[in-house]
Amino acid sequence: MSQTAPDDILLRDDRDGICTLTLNRPQARNALSRPLMAALQQQLDALRDDASVTVVVLAANGPAFCAGHDLKEVQSLHNEQHLALFQQCSRMMMSIVTLPKPVIARVHAMATAAGCQLVASCDLAYAADSAQFATPGVNIGLFCSTPMVALSRNVPRKIAMEMLLSGKPIPASRAAAFGLINEAVAAEELDGAVYGMARAIASKSPLTLAIGKEAFYRQVEMPLADAYDYASEVMARNMAAADAAEGIDAFLGKRPPQWCGR
Amino acid sequence: MSQTAPDDILLRDDRDGICTLTLNRPQARNALSRPLMAALQQQLDALRDDASVTVVVLAANGPAFCAGHDLKEVQSLHNEQHLALFQQCSRMMMSIVTLPKPVIARVHAMATAAGCQLVASCDLAYAADSAQFATPGVNIGLFCSTPMVALSRNVPRKIAMEMLLSGKPIPASRAAAFGLINEAVAAEELDGAVYGMARAIASKSPLTLAIGKEAFYRQVEMPLADAYDYASEVMARNMAAADAAEGIDAFLGKRPPQWCGR
Amino acid sequence: MSQTAPDDILLRDDRDGICTLTLNRPQARNALSRPLMAALQQQLDALRDDASVTVVVLAANGPAFCAGHDLKEVQSLHNEQHLALFQQCSRMMMSIVTLPKPVIARVHAMATAAGCQLVASCDLAYAADSAQFATPGVNIGLFCSTPMVALSRNVPRKIAMEMLLSGKPIPASRAAAFGLINEAVAAEELDGAVYGMARAIASKSPLTLAIGKEAFYRQVEMPLADAYDYASEVMARNMAAADAAEGIDAFLGKRPPQWCGR
Repeated sequence: MSQTAPDDILLRDDRDGICTLTLNRPQARNALSRPLMAALQQQLDALRDDASVTVVVLAANGPAFCAGHDLKEVQSLHNEQHLALFQQCSRMMMSIVTLPKPVIARVHAMATAAGCQLVASCDLAYAADSAQFATPGVNIGLFCSTPMVALSRNVPRKIAMEMLLSGKPIPASRAAAFGLINEAVAAEELDGAVYGMARAIASKSPLTLAIGKEAFYRQVEMPLADAYDYASEVMARNMAAADAAEGIDAFLGKRPPQWCGR
Repeated sequence: MSQTAPDDILLRDDRDGICTLTLNRPQARNALSRPLMAALQQQLDALRDDASVTVVVLAANGPAFCAGHDLKEVQSLHNEQHLALFQQCSRMMMSIVTLPKPVIARVHAMATAAGCQLVASCDLAYAADSAQFATPGVNIGLFCSTPMVALSRNVPRKIAMEMLLSGKPIPASRAAAFGLINEAVAAEELDGAVYGMARAIASKSPLTLAIGKEAFYRQVEMPLADAYDYASEVMARNMAAADAAEGIDAFLGKRPPQWCGR
Repeated sequence: MSQTAPDDILLRDDRDGICTLTLNRPQARNALSRPLMAALQQQLDALRDDASVTVVVLAANGPAFCAGHDLKEVQSLHNEQHLALFQQCSRMMMSIVTLPKPVIARVHAMATAAGCQLVASCDLAYAADSAQFATPGVNIGLFCSTPMVALSRNVPRKIAMEMLLSGKPIPASRAAAFGLINEAVAAEELDGAVYGMARAIASKSPLTLAIGKEAFYRQVEMPLADAYDYASEVMARNMAAADAAEGIDAFLGKRPPQWCGR
């Protein structure tokens, strides 16, 4: 599946190796209802082995990027269902991290709670300078504990705590200054920033991107000496791939490489 | 105990759920003598279960915020007493981190060595733009090894190393740029920044704040997958609290919540 | 050995306790051939116990700081030799981290791949504002997996990922904003920044610097409570050294200290 109907809750559009997934519950501020999380999970699962896609863009329609969980749904669940709900959400966020393709968030507007977590979980993120980021669960008595897992691995501790304890939004400029997003740009330049980067990455070897992304998140959790042992092995394995031989030969021969994906 | 005599070495003033602890050895630049560390420890222990306090502010009187250990005292101790001294200090710093209430540093002036560590150990910090931060132990042959535990968990490694190896102070603006403090403001706006944030946080559910703060420091030390397992359980537990039900109901009903602290 | 011949691939110049190692393969953009890595390793090993040196500066000659691995050499090796190559490089980078003396990178121009890793592996780094930093392995099908070990411990995740996935260089100003370097200065002020800091550090007790640097990289990988236990012991041990007694006595007596290195 590569294209979807315009009234689906999650749209997919594939072009030139770039798959754009668009949250499409604009009237609900793209709240992550269970059906929307399931649709995201299904797409992320399908993308793992989809050789036609090299880069994924996560975008959204409507006045907000994503408002986090659907509170009416949360309220309607029995207590024994809540753990399963948060586990479903965490599994989906983990699937972004473990997807063997780079994922870029395109944040045109407010990203809140699990919506902010979505941005933090992506490998890269670009935002309109009018966008804001918040983890306001504390305002409704429900601390943003799962969003903070991703947030606290993106920004310094006191900045994360400021957002988590106060619930107040930070502007895109502050998010960019501390690494929650890569850049804040004028709204009319957002597509240029996102798809300029997406195209640049889509020109690389998909195998090399997969090796590198997996190794990044594994080594970052290791002690330094272990990380070097592991990364040295990863690089030696990478060197044995046809795409590395081709890339080095093309570079030394001053010609563009032809990736075969092996 | 909620108010103290003006000549005590540690002052306490409680208002509207906000407890301000003020270091009050101005002539000694608030050096952390054993009596002052003991007084801080006593207050932190007492605050754990003090239902009248939601937020703690850590402030100081005099020309410095805090100059770190009291060097005359350090010099007067026998060698076998030094380990106990540093363990006492470390225990007090850990008590800030494990206190189930947010702690905000109000840094009006120079914070040095264990004084810089105090700031780094708080959840949030605001400073006058004339304040400075230093870990100058290297100048006296005694590397700031315990301060660096907190410092290196607040700022990037090379910034921490710059402070530790050179002993030179950094200005509040640099501290803010790298996350050692949340914001540097004009001296006359410092109380507004500190107590504005303190009041905002004091309006939240104390139970929710306690759940979130504990979970923050626990999950940040875990591998990602473990952190999500843990945080999902924390959120489910949080959802079972009366304050979460009340907060969500109030939000959906567009009315202010009434916390019961359960 | 303290001085070298001008046509050596690695130059060494010792002055006033500061040892400058200069990469000297300018025509090869200081690519880290096996001989150059071996020469660096030899110097780093020799410096461990060289009491005449307190601070090390890592510099480079020519149009680039360092271009990373020597791709012609990499291409000429059999596949079973690649693991040994990356392990040799990782061991050398680890030797910078475990050297009991501060190492400062003097980055006058582009630092790429393992060259960027060299900068990230140093304790401090200063760069000309025209210098750039890149991890472009992805462009040749060989992800910068070992460079990212050092890079991801210096800058926020999304900034590291931006460099690793796109291969694009970042300017010195962006490197400074996120902590990959301590400061970007005008080219003509680079020596002043590097050697000003080197001289400041060379005036400290070498023993204290060694204790502190080792403790820094060990504690930063520990959980907080363990880090405090460890650092408290380090400080008590440091206090038992003659240099700490001298430093405190000199400070309280308002006179300059005389280090004995014990």
